[in-house]
Order: sequence, then C-alpha cells, then structure tokens
Amino acid sequence: MSPPDYRAMLAVAVEEARLGLAEGGIPIGAALFARDGTLLGRGRNRRVQENDPSAHGETDAFRKAGRQRSYRDTLMVTTLSPCWYCSGLVRQFGIGTVVMGESANFHGGHDWLRAHGVEVVDLGDAECIAMLGDWIAAHPQVWHEDIGQD
Amino acid sequence: MSPPDYRAMLAVAVEEARLGLAEGGIPIGAALFARDGTLLGRGRNRRVQENDPSAHGETDAFRKAGRQRSYRDTLMVTTLSPCWYCSGLVRQFGIGTVVMGESANFHGGHDWLRAHGVEVVDLGDAECIAMLGDWIAAHPQVWHEDIGQD
Repeated sequence: MSPPDYRAMLAVAVEEARLGLAEGGIPIGAALFARDGTLLGRGRNRRVQENDPSAHGETDAFRKAGRQRSYRDTLMVTTLSPCWYCSGLVRQFGIGTVVMGESANFHGGHDWLRAHGVEVVDLGDAECIAMLGDWIAAHPQVWHEDIGQD
Repeated sequence: MSPPDYRAMLAVAVEEARLGLAEGGIPIGAALFARDGTLLGRGRNRRVQENDPSAHGETDAFRKAGRQRSYRDTLMVTTLSPCWYCSGLVRQFGIGTVVMGESANFHGGHDWLRAHGVEVVDLGDAECIAMLGDWIAAHPQVWHEDIGQD
C-alpha cells in the first residue's frame, strides 16, 4: 500500500472549512479517513450556523462517519490543531493518526496525543493559517467562545 | 445562595439514562446546570438509537444547552465518570464542576480534570452502578464500542 497522501486528505478538510466560511461560520474543517484513503466522514465547525457548540470540525466528521468498530487504522485530518474536546475524542476512540493543517493559530492537545501514542503530523499549511487567522482577527469574540475563553 | 443539591441534579441525569435504557440504548445520562440550579440542557447516550457515536451523555447535554458565553459557573452532572472525549469537553470549555453518579463501572478522565482545577464530586450512587453494570454485563460488545476498545 502506498503511504497516505496527507495533502490530498487535507484538501477535503480545507474544502469543508471554506464551506463553513461561506456560511458565515468559523472556518475549521475535518475529515476522517481509513488508512487506504477511503473517506469515512467529513465535517466542519457549525457553532454559528446551527447554534451548536458541540459541532467542532473533528467531532462533526467523526459523527458523519457513523459507528465504526475500530478507529486504530483511521486518520483524523483537520485544518487546525485539535482542542481538548477533539483531542479527547481522538484518545478515547483510539484514532491512530492526526494530520493537522496548522497549529499556529491555536495549539490544542496534540502534544498530549503524541505522548499517548498517537501519530501527529503538522503540515504547517499557509492557506489554513491565513484563512483562520484572518477570520479570528475579524471575529475575536466568536473565536473566544468557540475555545471556551471567557 | 444555598449549596447545589447534587442528588436532585443527579436525578435528572438518571432520568435521562432510564429513557435511554427504555429506547434500547446505553443507559448513561447527563445534564448541565447553572450554579443556582437552573437546568441548561439534558441529554443521554444515543449511539444505538441514532447510530451516533458522538452522542455521549455529556456532549448531548452540552449540545442541548446551546451556546453559552461562559461555563465557569456551570455543573456537568453525569451518571458515569466522563470518558476522555467528555473530559476534554469539560476542560476546553472551562466547566467548573463535574458531579458524577459513579466511577465504579468506568474510570474516565476525572482525575485529570481534578488536576486541572475542575471540582469533581463522586456520589457513588448505587442505582447508577447497578443500572449500567447490568447493561454492560448483557451487552459487552456495544459497551466496548462506546469506549473505543477494539
């Protein structure tokens, strides 16, 4: 089997983030893949669109993937370093790999995940950094709400 | 202000767990309260009922509570020690207190939460222990799926 194409996988998460942006939402997207590249689920932050504080990109993608018997050989691909909520999801369900577009705008729980055996890849993607960075600068209040900062 | 009545709050979470049991689901319930006792949201595990692996009791109650500006003065009341996914939720959003019915059937992330400044109360409730314990004994496979054990 050829190695997973992280950039191609990230493109799906970025597409979700762009959809969110077009809807007026926080531009963070994610997708859950099997190791062979099969897309299992894709999702995006929908706090603003659906008034749903539980819909982070990663949890939305996880939800859309439905019930899976094992997550060991799955990859959670996300435009941003996963927050504690999403990092907890990865750890609890034993998702094997996290691929993140960036960790410059927000440093979540990915060090903790790495310390607990999860493979973590940071692509340092310039488009992800710019898209969310611009959004945060324009909407600091909603951003702080989304990461639970009073 | 009188101190929160943890037992009365737990009764709401237990009611949710019983509803889940009646629906054929995993009997775990939760509710998010303001410190003055106002109920903000209540929910239950709905993995089986809705094929939704993201609907744990705590995340469901959090979702039902809608967008809140701050969680510092809220209490997450749950029939069971919160798993890593739900513990991550508590930490990220700064929920001040976790009240759990029991931690005998499952020991989640509550020590970690305590170490990070969350007030954690374990009521050691016999009904919670029996309800989930009986269910796990009868449905070990779905239980292992719910906590991400292959």
